[in-house]
This record gives sequence, C-alpha cells and structure tokens, in this order.
Amino acid sequence: MYSSKSLFTFLFFPFLLSISAHSYTHRARAPCKEMVFFFHDIVYNGENYKNATSAIIGAPEWGNRTIMSSPNNFGDMIVFDDPITLDNNLHSPPIGRAQGMYFYDQKDTFSSWLGFSFVFNNTDYKGSLNFAGHDPLMNKTRDISVIGGTGDFFMTRGIATLSTDAFEGSVYFRLRVHVKLYECWKLL
Amino acid sequence: MYSSKSLFTFLFFPFLLSISAHSYTHRARAPCKEMVFFFHDIVYNGENYKNATSAIIGAPEWGNRTIMSSPNNFGDMIVFDDPITLDNNLHSPPIGRAQGMYFYDQKDTFSSWLGFSFVFNNTDYKGSLNFAGHDPLMNKTRDISVIGGTGDFFMTRGIATLSTDAFEGSVYFRLRVHVKLYECWKLL
Amino acid sequence: MYSSKSLFTFLFFPFLLSISAHSYTHRARAPCKEMVFFFHDIVYNGENYKNATSAIIGAPEWGNRTIMSSPNNFGDMIVFDDPITLDNNLHSPPIGRAQGMYFYDQKDTFSSWLGFSFVFNNTDYKGSLNFAGHDPLMNKTRDISVIGGTGDFFMTRGIATLSTDAFEGSVYFRLRVHVKLYECWKLL
Repeated sequence: MYSSKSLFTFLFFPFLLSISAHSYTHRARAPCKEMVFFFHDIVYNGENYKNATSAIIGAPEWGNRTIMSSPNNFGDMIVFDDPITLDNNLHSPPIGRAQGMYFYDQKDTFSSWLGFSFVFNNTDYKGSLNFAGHDPLMNKTRDISVIGGTGDFFMTRGIATLSTDAFEGSVYFRLRVHVKLYECWKLL
Repeated sequence: MYSSKSLFTFLFFPFLLSISAHSYTHRARAPCKEMVFFFHDIVYNGENYKNATSAIIGAPEWGNRTIMSSPNNFGDMIVFDDPITLDNNLHSPPIGRAQGMYFYDQKDTFSSWLGFSFVFNNTDYKGSLNFAGHDPLMNKTRDISVIGGTGDFFMTRGIATLSTDAFEGSVYFRLRVHVKLYECWKLL
Repeated sequence: MYSSKSLFTFLFFPFLLSISAHSYTHRARAPCKEMVFFFHDIVYNGENYKNATSAIIGAPEWGNRTIMSSPNNFGDMIVFDDPITLDNNLHSPPIGRAQGMYFYDQKDTFSSWLGFSFVFNNTDYKGSLNFAGHDPLMNKTRDISVIGGTGDFFMTRGIATLSTDAFEGSVYFRLRVHVKLYECWKLL
C-alpha cells in the first residue's frame, strides 16, 4: 500500500514541476495554428507614386529616397502598406494589410531586418500579428519571430517562414509567409 | 480500489499534460497585472524646439522633417522622449518616460506602427516595458503587444489598449495606455 | 484513508492549476541557457567608409548623416552590421553578426533604443536571436528583452544585460552582451 507520505509526494510532484518547468525546455510537437499568406511590395521609385505601396524613408549619406543605395541597399529603410492575399496574384482580393518597415542591414549581401504587423478585419480573422526579425533574403527560406498578437491572435507567439515568391528589379517583390504559431492563447 | 497501474496513470497524466501543454491553447481569465498611464507627445515643427518631446527623423522623398507629409503622414518616422503621467494633465509630475519611435504606415488613412519602451525609475516601479505593434489611430481603442520587460517587469508579456485622449493638430497628442499583463515572471 | 472524491480532487488539482497557471506568476530560478558575446560598432563619419560597420540613416531636421546631432544624438538612427566576437578583441574571428538598428531617444542624456538580431551560422550555433529594448547607455549595465529566436534558438525568450566595454568618441564602441534565456523551446 501507499503510505500517506509517498502518496503526497507522488501527488504533488507534477504540480511542483509544472511551476518550475518554466526554466526548463518547452517541447513543441506541432503548431497550434498554421496559415499561409502572400504579400506584395511595390517600392516608390520617383515615378510610380500611385501604385507604390512602400517608400524609402531613410538612407545613408551616400543614398537617396528614390533609388536603393549601393552596395546591397545597405542602410535603406522602407515603410510599407502592402496588400495580403491568399494566393500569389497581386490582383486577388486582399484579405488584410502588411504594415511596417524593413531596412537593409548587410554591407556584403542583400539582407534585411523586419518590424511589421499583419492586420486583419474580415470574417475569417480579426486582429493583428506582430513580427520582428532578420531576413537574409538571398536564402530560399528564412525564419522570423511572431512576437505577439491581438484580437483573434491575442498573446500568440511563433515563427514565420519567409520565401521570396517573385522579384522584379528593386521595385516589386512578393513574399510567401508561412505562419506557424506554437503558443496560442484564449481570453476567457 | 485503484490498481497500481491506474494510479500511476492518474498521477502522471497531469504531469505529461503540463509538459506538452505548450503546444495547446493557454487560457487567461484575467491579467496578472493592470496599470493605466498617459503619455504626451509634442512633435517638433521647426519652431518649438524647447518644448518638443519628439522629432521627425525620416520621411519619404515628398516629405520633410518639420511638417508631416501628405497624405496621412505616410512614411514619416518620429523618435520620441515623452513624459508619462498618471492622469491626463501634461503638467503632472512625470512618473517615467515613454521612449521609442513610431511611423505612419498607411496611405489612405492615419495609422502608425510603434516600437518603444516605458521606462520607470521611482519608488513604485523600477524597470522597463517593451511594446511593439500596429496602431490604427482613428479607432477609438486599439491593442498593441507588450513583448517583454526588465526589472520589476522581468520577462512579462501582455497587451496594451491605446486610446487617443487628446489631439491638437499635428503637434500635440496624448495617449491613454491601459497595460494588461497576462504573463508575469518572478526571478527567485 | 482517502475517499474516492478527495483522491480525485488531489489528483486533478495539479492539472487544473497547470492549465490556469498562465495567468499567475512564473518563477524562474536560473536561465535555461547563458552566453556572453561582444559586438563592435564603427559608425560611418564621412571618411571611414571601408571600415565602417554602421551608418546614420535618419536624423532630426537639425542633424545630418555624418556627425551625430547635438545634444545627445537625439533623433539619430543608425543601421548596423557588426561583427560578434567571443572576447573583447575587434580582430578576433567573428562568430556571427549583430544586425539591426538603434536610435538615440533622449534629449537630456545619451540613451538609445535597439531593435536587432544576433545571427549565427557556425558549428556551435545556427539561428538567430531577436532583441528589442531601451538602452540607457550611461548606466554601467542595462537590460533589454530577447523577444524571440529561430533555429537553435527557436521560440526562446529572455533578457540580455548590456555593458559598454569600450568607447572611442562617437565612432567606435564595443558592447558586452550577457544573454540569459529563461524560456527555451525544442521542436520535436
């Protein structure tokens, strides 16, 4: 038979562990939510104001705000307001906006850093996802962090795998974004 | 009576769940901490250097650094060092500083993106709260993410509900910030 | 003896707690991972293009992009691509890059805000750590947030304690970064 003492130990062992578990490693088997989106960026180049969805707003001393700086756009910062679509067609009905900024931060290759949100207000999703991270855009795929969210995405965390789906000179690009959320929250 | 095997299963079931729970949905009933603050932003316009708490530091090619760009300030980036007060009076004793940046990121309405910290060093609070997120400022309320913290706010996460408490042209605005932390940490 | 009912309560009490625990305070005894790095920033000043690892890309109306603005660099934004070393020697073999931006955000002293990544691709570490936070650089030490990570640092969170290890005018500085991760994740 179990003694009162060992039963107590057995019963409370899991509880004690669950309290201190937060300094140990969390194991994730699969995302609690996955989604795939595309977004489309058309950079202002001095002649496409009407169609442009983004603009250079900062540049190093040797750069300017209509042509990317050389070499490798280093130091150029772009603010964007890009349509999000469910497929790779720029003209598909947008289901949200990708809004934020990126800047090029490597001297010897094309690489950028992103801080932005996906903003949704439709029947499927209401709320925002906030992203930050390093995007070495010459790699086929690269991961950034989902650092939080609001509305349907309250308190969420995860990663997003980016891939460049299309690229036309320095004016148009399209990113495929595979969002994988590993921490989901519900506000009761 | 309970067999040894079923007792084992019962006893360890919670433990196994607590380990894998992190790929499931966390449920939050109420914040572990709530606070309400106001902060006050006075944008430099070329003539108010002494009083200004913020300044335009980036703008699209069609903008400049003393007048917000048209339309909808799109592409303007502002760095700020704003006093935080407990009530809506600009002249109340500041209990901390809101320091960081925002930029306007929508072409067809006023909307911005924020990356900043609340910095406290008083008897009530010592430490910082870090924020990031999308602020569609024409909405009565909008949520951004609390992405981390230090000192008294070590490792915290949550959301902050913003509302524009006052607005005077493009030079002064006051934000009410309702901070709701759902993940609190204590360093033992 | 234990009644069936009280046994049930005992058995499931830990489980219920572990589900709702997320609105309570997490306790951390020690980091799940600790690392110390140095990174080296050489700001472009109009004459050191070849050696510079960073450049001013935004400044207030009264500033420019080759000399820090006065007073206290307020409003200057710098994009950087800095080598990370394991010791305090600029010429040690870099084990990664610190890439991102900082800007000075206080009018009456030197203080900045950082948004950047540590990027590793070597035998010890592959992946990135994402940082954000307030850096009051006149303090001996100060903490910023680790807001996420990818690769070997998948989903991690923590803080980083910064200290200025060297400082030569406004062109070179070296930061010591003590990374302390309190939330570690493993993707199974």
